[in-house]
Amino acid sequence: MSRSSDIGELVDRARQGQPRAIARLISLVEDASPRLREVAAALAPFSGHARVIGLTGPPGVGKSTSTSAFVTALRKRGKRVGVLAVDPSSPFSGGALLGDRIRMQEHATDPGVFIRSMATRGHLGGLSWATPQALRVLDAAGFDVVLIETVGVGQSEVDVVSLADTTVVLLAPGMGDGIQAAKAGILEIADVFVVNKADRDGAEATVRDLKNMVAMARRGIEEASWRQPIVRTVASKVEGVDDAVAALDAHHQWLVDHGGLEQRRHTRARAEVEAIAVEAVRAGFTGRGQDVLADLAKRVAAGDLDPYTAADQLVAGITGPVQRS
Amino acid sequence: MSRSSDIGELVDRARQGQPRAIARLISLVEDASPRLREVAAALAPFSGHARVIGLTGPPGVGKSTSTSAFVTALRKRGKRVGVLAVDPSSPFSGGALLGDRIRMQEHATDPGVFIRSMATRGHLGGLSWATPQALRVLDAAGFDVVLIETVGVGQSEVDVVSLADTTVVLLAPGMGDGIQAAKAGILEIADVFVVNKADRDGAEATVRDLKNMVAMARRGIEEASWRQPIVRTVASKVEGVDDAVAALDAHHQWLVDHGGLEQRRHTRARAEVEAIAVEAVRAGFTGRGQDVLADLAKRVAAGDLDPYTAADQLVAGITGPVQRS
Repeated sequence: MSRSSDIGELVDRARQGQPRAIARLISLVEDASPRLREVAAALAPFSGHARVIGLTGPPGVGKSTSTSAFVTALRKRGKRVGVLAVDPSSPFSGGALLGDRIRMQEHATDPGVFIRSMATRGHLGGLSWATPQALRVLDAAGFDVVLIETVGVGQSEVDVVSLADTTVVLLAPGMGDGIQAAKAGILEIADVFVVNKADRDGAEATVRDLKNMVAMARRGIEEASWRQPIVRTVASKVEGVDDAVAALDAHHQWLVDHGGLEQRRHTRARAEVEAIAVEAVRAGFTGRGQDVLADLAKRVAAGDLDPYTAADQLVAGITGPVQRS
Repeated sequence: MSRSSDIGELVDRARQGQPRAIARLISLVEDASPRLREVAAALAPFSGHARVIGLTGPPGVGKSTSTSAFVTALRKRGKRVGVLAVDPSSPFSGGALLGDRIRMQEHATDPGVFIRSMATRGHLGGLSWATPQALRVLDAAGFDVVLIETVGVGQSEVDVVSLADTTVVLLAPGMGDGIQAAKAGILEIADVFVVNKADRDGAEATVRDLKNMVAMARRGIEEASWRQPIVRTVASKVEGVDDAVAALDAHHQWLVDHGGLEQRRHTRARAEVEAIAVEAVRAGFTGRGQDVLADLAKRVAAGDLDPYTAADQLVAGITGPVQRS
């Protein structure tokens, strides 16, 4: 009982904007604390108010500089802003992370800003598991906007889309054929394109390529659908950032007007519940002091059992106990 | 019955080396055909003979050229070689794939080589689901070596490790700070380092950085553990490729001598069975004509239910039917 009231008090303090309480709650969910469920239950009534903006793009386009500039612009509009900087922890993508985080330090003393780096290495399911819970903490704590920033490699940019109301894809000049080759993918995930470093050579070509891609993709699409804007910025000089924020606002308003916001939040809740349920089931495969999976894996490795029959036996073996847990 | 004998016949023909039968079996598993289970059961007795080599590394290091050169070298040693070229389908990494695949064409008329590109976009779990099944087909078809090539972004390089007996990490000069920043990650996954494009400026610096990393990581590690070799190649000129293949052989022999091969294959079977079981459970969330998950997601999105309680209800709801399926 005293434990429950601890969590309740922590949530109260987070909602008053105390950064230590917010950080503590995120740690509890990130570490998959046994009290995770208590935390989730305490947060649920306060959820669903924050605007969630995802920022993704290939390495080197200036994601953290852009995030920092967006935070400044949103603060000027009086918004409280939470940032989740998600490092997908690829062995090959770590490069500039430390420097990036330092760039965010200008907001460190602003009580209206909360910034958290989240590493996903070792978390099964990458972003899909801990990040939504951290997002719930920031949402319940009353942040008006939560920015989720992640480098666009592999699965991570797809995951960020599943979380965001609005997804910004950042690009920069000089990616050459990359944009052409990638066109199907980035068209699918972007609500707003930002071409950063727009003062560099090749910016116009990048914007033109994007325009052509968007125009081609819209053939046959009904007029009422959202037309992805392309905004030029130089985030390091705070140029074009207000335009970018205006594009984010326009997309948000469009979602509200067309029922898309509810749809995206339903999709997000769906992905979240599914991820938690899958993890619970997975935990059952090796739980209760016996490693059922290990025995089955041995027989499969020896060729005595095919993996599908093994999986059937595994699922049959855990369903009872999982049901009861 | 006639269906089962069809699959049996297909497996027979694949084992005789008929490429169309092999391709057909891979399609059956890749498309999650209803006959997948039949295929898996028919393949199981013939599994566990192929050496599985994973090749990964960041974009631009010459992975496909290296894979092609490795295939040539292994063919000279009389080995039948299967290649699974896995495209993790990041919106941002598509660039050179088509050109890469064309580079592999030199092996197209060699009956001792079978090459298959696999896209993972849209497959839940990325590599983890379809690739192990395709690997089983090639293994059962009697290939001595299966090379799994994937670009090292996000989760894919971790997945390839979970499949391979030996993992090769390819690097190239001029990655600069990237190697330093990435050191923890690539040290974990590499059994053999190959520095390709070793005739370029900066090759020696890259090799030196890697040597330092390996030496530092080995502090406190027992002498008996595997010491990751660093091999220089210029794959486009077939320089150093024999050295690289020798390093692969040395690692394989080390695994055999130290019981590591069995361990890795057990780990692989474990990951495979787990992935199949998780997919089966996940399918149950929306199966049988009603979308239980959708109803729960709506209540979570509205703040009426926390996601953990929703996940509990979801798991409780599907356990019966999944058990019976």
